[in-house]
Amino acid sequence: MQTNHIGKQTVVFRSLPSISHTFSIVGPKEGRGPWGPDYDTVLPDEVYGEQTWEKAERKLVVEAVNNLIQKAKLQPDEISFLLAGDLLNQIISSNFAAATFPIPFFGLFGACSTIAEALILGAMLIDGRYGSRVIAAASSHNKAAERQFRFPIEFGTQRPPTAQWTVTGCGSFLIDDSATNPRITCATVGRVVDMGCKDPNDMGSAMAPAAADTLLAHFKDLAKQPADYDLIVTGDLGKVGSAILAELMEEAGFGFVDNYLDCGASIFHPDEDVHAGGSGCAALAVGFAGHFFKLIQAGKLNKVLLAGTGALLSPLTSLQNENIPCICHAVAIEVI
Amino acid sequence: MQTNHIGKQTVVFRSLPSISHTFSIVGPKEGRGPWGPDYDTVLPDEVYGEQTWEKAERKLVVEAVNNLIQKAKLQPDEISFLLAGDLLNQIISSNFAAATFPIPFFGLFGACSTIAEALILGAMLIDGRYGSRVIAAASSHNKAAERQFRFPIEFGTQRPPTAQWTVTGCGSFLIDDSATNPRITCATVGRVVDMGCKDPNDMGSAMAPAAADTLLAHFKDLAKQPADYDLIVTGDLGKVGSAILAELMEEAGFGFVDNYLDCGASIFHPDEDVHAGGSGCAALAVGFAGHFFKLIQAGKLNKVLLAGTGALLSPLTSLQNENIPCICHAVAIEVI
Repeated sequence: MQTNHIGKQTVVFRSLPSISHTFSIVGPKEGRGPWGPDYDTVLPDEVYGEQTWEKAERKLVVEAVNNLIQKAKLQPDEISFLLAGDLLNQIISSNFAAATFPIPFFGLFGACSTIAEALILGAMLIDGRYGSRVIAAASSHNKAAERQFRFPIEFGTQRPPTAQWTVTGCGSFLIDDSATNPRITCATVGRVVDMGCKDPNDMGSAMAPAAADTLLAHFKDLAKQPADYDLIVTGDLGKVGSAILAELMEEAGFGFVDNYLDCGASIFHPDEDVHAGGSGCAALAVGFAGHFFKLIQAGKLNKVLLAGTGALLSPLTSLQNENIPCICHAVAIEVI
Repeated sequence: MQTNHIGKQTVVFRSLPSISHTFSIVGPKEGRGPWGPDYDTVLPDEVYGEQTWEKAERKLVVEAVNNLIQKAKLQPDEISFLLAGDLLNQIISSNFAAATFPIPFFGLFGACSTIAEALILGAMLIDGRYGSRVIAAASSHNKAAERQFRFPIEFGTQRPPTAQWTVTGCGSFLIDDSATNPRITCATVGRVVDMGCKDPNDMGSAMAPAAADTLLAHFKDLAKQPADYDLIVTGDLGKVGSAILAELMEEAGFGFVDNYLDCGASIFHPDEDVHAGGSGCAALAVGFAGHFFKLIQAGKLNKVLLAGTGALLSPLTSLQNENIPCICHAVAIEVI
């Protein structure tokens, strides 16, 4: 029988699963950014009526999934599976949100690459006919992430120029066999790449090599070039990491042709003082669910390669003077 | 085309992927337990020559995966995918272990249900022909878990009778299309179940309803009964949770017929004073990779239903007075 594994790291989804609907919900800083009008919901604050930041982040996930189901005019029991993850310890935002739905659940952790990982596994669930409708979601919350990874914001600590600002939001996607556009055509699953970077305040530099590793595998596995895509979008390399990636791709003979963009480097208004740009699981999730999905629906983009990038450190590994291993998963979204 | 989704939560793997090899590595307490002779490696201590508990746990994963690949007489680049998870924040044991292999990687988090989740997704990757050989692994380490979830052991804190003892170990599985026995025939994906339990020192009570929820879905989806299996094995409900589960199943009309066992309640010698029993991702992972897999190979078990159970709390959610939502994934392992 025909294999669906191509080259070293790539899989194809021959039934061309569809992303039929998306839903994005973001915080106010994200709403003030260039993609503000494209999100489904922009919150007036990051508290979201809750008593803790963590409860606020969970609510982002619950609302993103609930609203997505409603947008698709479905009921929760018509969803075969939910795949989700976030940055918080034991992915509590995803787990506690999943507890409010009667949907069979797969918990994932790929740091900021999680939505790409979820889209890949979700596409497999549909393509392999293990389900008919799957929801993929990923979230992050600036204040919850600061408290866990660095310091509570009340400390007023300084952030270096290479630091990034965790996006507050949740992006959710309904993947199904509806044969509508756009389709998830194929994906390249990342390997964990460790280049010896140690600075937790510069994740862009740590992640860029992983992004290059996966993108190069993608192009080589499929005998493609960057120019085969209208746009290549990484999640949160930020200004520092995206510049490094562009350089690495050029050196490898697969340079971008004015068709590369990083969500983290683009999601906030330049005046927001976010230093190297946005980060977090939500950077790519809301960027794609909101902004890029609308461009695809409007016919302005037909072939997009999403590359979610994750830095797989924890506060403890940094304290133990470890390196920062990273991963990048790439997903091809195309109008057929 | 024929669907592979059955009933509400169950998927079938029609090509019957094989578990061709396993590898289990455990700490000394586990080695002194009733399944001691069945593990591939029993360590003399939990330090494993490393400077921190976390580095020791990572080494468990590296060694389990390395040795599994060697046992199967393969090279790392012949493995299509690695799926793994653990209990530590940002699943660092799995991520850092994956960094030492050139294998495309999916990071998972299902607490102590993780190995079941990994076996399901791994079976899907093989059955859907997205890869030809997949490794599923899950680990835990008693000292690393104590430090993260409760207190460093140096504090000498007391443990209540309902508390469980995190298993130190890693179990790894090679899933492939070799058509050897045993096979992964089908699986039931769990929903997150929240029954309002709050006591982080009694996870068995919290998890038992989730186990019942998934097992009942499994039997109803497939029109089966517990008696259709030689053995039903839960991961770590412990003495408290397994008794509750047996009662819940009896009340639902699907009572066990002297064919139910919990790894946590069985993995340690009764004299070890582990209170309610073992817990952690490794409980089911090493129990199955070591003990039960050998029984299957010896022809003493032909149809086994593995049910990995996870409590999806974090130390922070307990501090915020939250409930403990739980999940259970069930995987059918059969000799055809």
